[in-house]
Amino acid sequence: MNSIEKLLEKLKPSWEEQERYGHIASKIVESLQNQCRERGIDADPVLVGSFAKDTNLRGGDLDIFIRFSRSYSTTELEKLGLELGRSVVRNSRARYAEHPYISGTVEGVKIDVVPCYRIDKSSEMVSSVDRTPLHTKYVNSHLSEEQKDDVRRLKLLLKSLDVYGSEIYRNGFSGYVCELLIDMYGSYHEVLRSFSEARGRIVIPAGSPSASRFTSPMVLIDPCDDDRNAAASVSLESLSKLKMAARLMLNGYDEVMLQKTHRVNDLDPGSRQTAFRIFRMPRPDLVPDTVYPQATKFRDVVMSILREGGFLPISSAVDITTNIDVLIECERDVVPRVIQHRGPSVDMPNSIDFLMKWRERNVLRGPYIIGDRLYVDIGRDCTVLEECVMKSIGKYDIGKNLNQYRGEIRILDPLKDREQLSSKVVELFMNERFPTSAKIEGVDHLSTGEDL
Amino acid sequence: MNSIEKLLEKLKPSWEEQERYGHIASKIVESLQNQCRERGIDADPVLVGSFAKDTNLRGGDLDIFIRFSRSYSTTELEKLGLELGRSVVRNSRARYAEHPYISGTVEGVKIDVVPCYRIDKSSEMVSSVDRTPLHTKYVNSHLSEEQKDDVRRLKLLLKSLDVYGSEIYRNGFSGYVCELLIDMYGSYHEVLRSFSEARGRIVIPAGSPSASRFTSPMVLIDPCDDDRNAAASVSLESLSKLKMAARLMLNGYDEVMLQKTHRVNDLDPGSRQTAFRIFRMPRPDLVPDTVYPQATKFRDVVMSILREGGFLPISSAVDITTNIDVLIECERDVVPRVIQHRGPSVDMPNSIDFLMKWRERNVLRGPYIIGDRLYVDIGRDCTVLEECVMKSIGKYDIGKNLNQYRGEIRILDPLKDREQLSSKVVELFMNERFPTSAKIEGVDHLSTGEDL
Repeated sequence: MNSIEKLLEKLKPSWEEQERYGHIASKIVESLQNQCRERGIDADPVLVGSFAKDTNLRGGDLDIFIRFSRSYSTTELEKLGLELGRSVVRNSRARYAEHPYISGTVEGVKIDVVPCYRIDKSSEMVSSVDRTPLHTKYVNSHLSEEQKDDVRRLKLLLKSLDVYGSEIYRNGFSGYVCELLIDMYGSYHEVLRSFSEARGRIVIPAGSPSASRFTSPMVLIDPCDDDRNAAASVSLESLSKLKMAARLMLNGYDEVMLQKTHRVNDLDPGSRQTAFRIFRMPRPDLVPDTVYPQATKFRDVVMSILREGGFLPISSAVDITTNIDVLIECERDVVPRVIQHRGPSVDMPNSIDFLMKWRERNVLRGPYIIGDRLYVDIGRDCTVLEECVMKSIGKYDIGKNLNQYRGEIRILDPLKDREQLSSKVVELFMNERFPTSAKIEGVDHLSTGEDL
Repeated sequence: MNSIEKLLEKLKPSWEEQERYGHIASKIVESLQNQCRERGIDADPVLVGSFAKDTNLRGGDLDIFIRFSRSYSTTELEKLGLELGRSVVRNSRARYAEHPYISGTVEGVKIDVVPCYRIDKSSEMVSSVDRTPLHTKYVNSHLSEEQKDDVRRLKLLLKSLDVYGSEIYRNGFSGYVCELLIDMYGSYHEVLRSFSEARGRIVIPAGSPSASRFTSPMVLIDPCDDDRNAAASVSLESLSKLKMAARLMLNGYDEVMLQKTHRVNDLDPGSRQTAFRIFRMPRPDLVPDTVYPQATKFRDVVMSILREGGFLPISSAVDITTNIDVLIECERDVVPRVIQHRGPSVDMPNSIDFLMKWRERNVLRGPYIIGDRLYVDIGRDCTVLEECVMKSIGKYDIGKNLNQYRGEIRILDPLKDREQLSSKVVELFMNERFPTSAKIEGVDHLSTGEDL
């Protein structure tokens, strides 16, 4: 039995768990129905999400949407939605995505109650939550029992690759994308075969005319909404990880692939003889889906400043758990003052301009010719890493919530400031490894992050 | 009057000088003729070189060839040639090119007396000196008086660019190449126009079928020998310098171009914050034409070892005056232990091999995926410049006369070993500048280096 089968055996919910969840869900739905009838509210509760589609993993949550008639204003919908939600969930807390919703627990199960509008097709949609019941309906009318287990297999594979989840900061595959992939390719095995053979960009359905509007590495047209790329959150890295994993699985390396990685924490940044820096700023009190893309933008900007400055950045890691922490490893933290500036070939008409321009300046050497090309050795403005970044960062946009902190960046050297060596971002960096299955160990570590 | 005209006025030989040279030449030729007749030697002396072609500059030398009948063996030719040469030249000294010849002075004028075979066409040639009288004949029957001054103009321009001379180590244009260029393009101005408009490789005559056999940046088929590229010694740099200079001259920058450069010796290698090293080995007691190409090969090999090793070499200089000195400037003399090794794209079939190979080794980090590509961080063998070069150099061929010294290379740091700062090679490096006219100041500094 291969490793995914072992995981499935361990992490597919038992009959008892499913029955218990079903019982809780029915009670809530019934209570909501009664209240709506009693209060004359034109709304009906509906169970959605992975439990409703029977594609859930152990220890998941329950998602109940209350579909309101389009006759309600959004203000009314939000007010009534929160009221109804609070009435059925203990320890409830209002949360805010596109619209507010209620989150809490019932008998130890995490429950989200989300108000939305009742629509028949996506063109009537007011906000994206309105479409979610259509997804549940689509999946339930298209997938067989066996295919639903294949969805679970695919989710487990993606979890083991740490690319599962619809949250933007995961850059990964949502539960709904898994369901569509199994639907479109027919089975888990066919999904693997298809990704293992794919080259470059993925477009599903192949040759789809609407695909040209999307620029993401993976395009999967939502059958409930032609205008939507269901796989928009899948980054090039995440897509690459699935392709690579699929190839490994089909070539007999699945045991290797899912075995726990041996060498975690025996890696020593100091032995690399490079320059590490943590660029740290306060973390705004906003959801990860808002903060993470700005943090990666910040990382990209600093990487590009460092590249331009000659510090030869190698790679990076980003953590937003408590602060915004961007770790960047560079080959060096001091660069020579001289930089060899490459000019045009002597065959180019602008070679005269280059020569006359630099001849009149106070250069370090030249202009001179190597091969057929002009060069001049000029001096850099900044030769020290910290100075280079702080001098330039103000000129770049790093996102509307982070821009305010550009002047407050702290630059830490984890090799000097040894307590930083245990930061999460250093751990993330040093443990970067493909494939790794350190993420899946059991129910305790599962954060399902299901697509609603 | 432009700068080349000023130089020509200064450096074209006066009537008096030409008459004095003619008188000396006649005396020598006459004396050689008499001796041949008296001793029954079937040979005739002939005046060749730039004086014979009236394309000489001030203070040049005289070249007299003694053309022997093909009935003499090369041993006889060499013996008789040296005897005859010694009889006409004071302070004579035998020198050895392809054949021995006599070099000395008469009334303060440097004279070379060279024995060769008498031939009518180049196919009968035994050694390349036999062809020289054919060149003299060709030029005298093709160039007008005015064109001969144009040859002088071109020579002066090339001298000012430091790319004049047939010696291989100059990588430059010989006197004969100048004469052929004026012959083929008609005038100095047309040569400039043609080079200023040229892109990439130069082939003269354009579209010549024999050109395909040559790989040099410039091909100029010798009208006296279809099998010969007269411009074989012209390097890409030298060709580029002439193209660039031609463009400057025709765009009104000729004064700028030939003015003396201001900032010589106010350059400080220490201010560059880079790593300089002089790689020094003994200079074999051989002519520059033999030593120089091997020294540049040595330079290329060390540059490539340093590039491969991550030391980021910037540029270099070579001097063979007393030792073989190769100066190389690198961005650093110590590299980090870690090197980011870039693997294939996950789309490539060999991605599995890469992953499995590196997964089992003791790497510093990874394998990991960035974008669609696999990487692994591995450790370098050598992190110190000196060690890196000395460990590898033995594996490379640096020429038959230098290979023996590979184990004896001394690596000097001119910033620590301050007396090395005044080495010629450091001066060459720091003064590298285009255009520069530091070379032409007057007769004293002229080393004509004419093509025989």
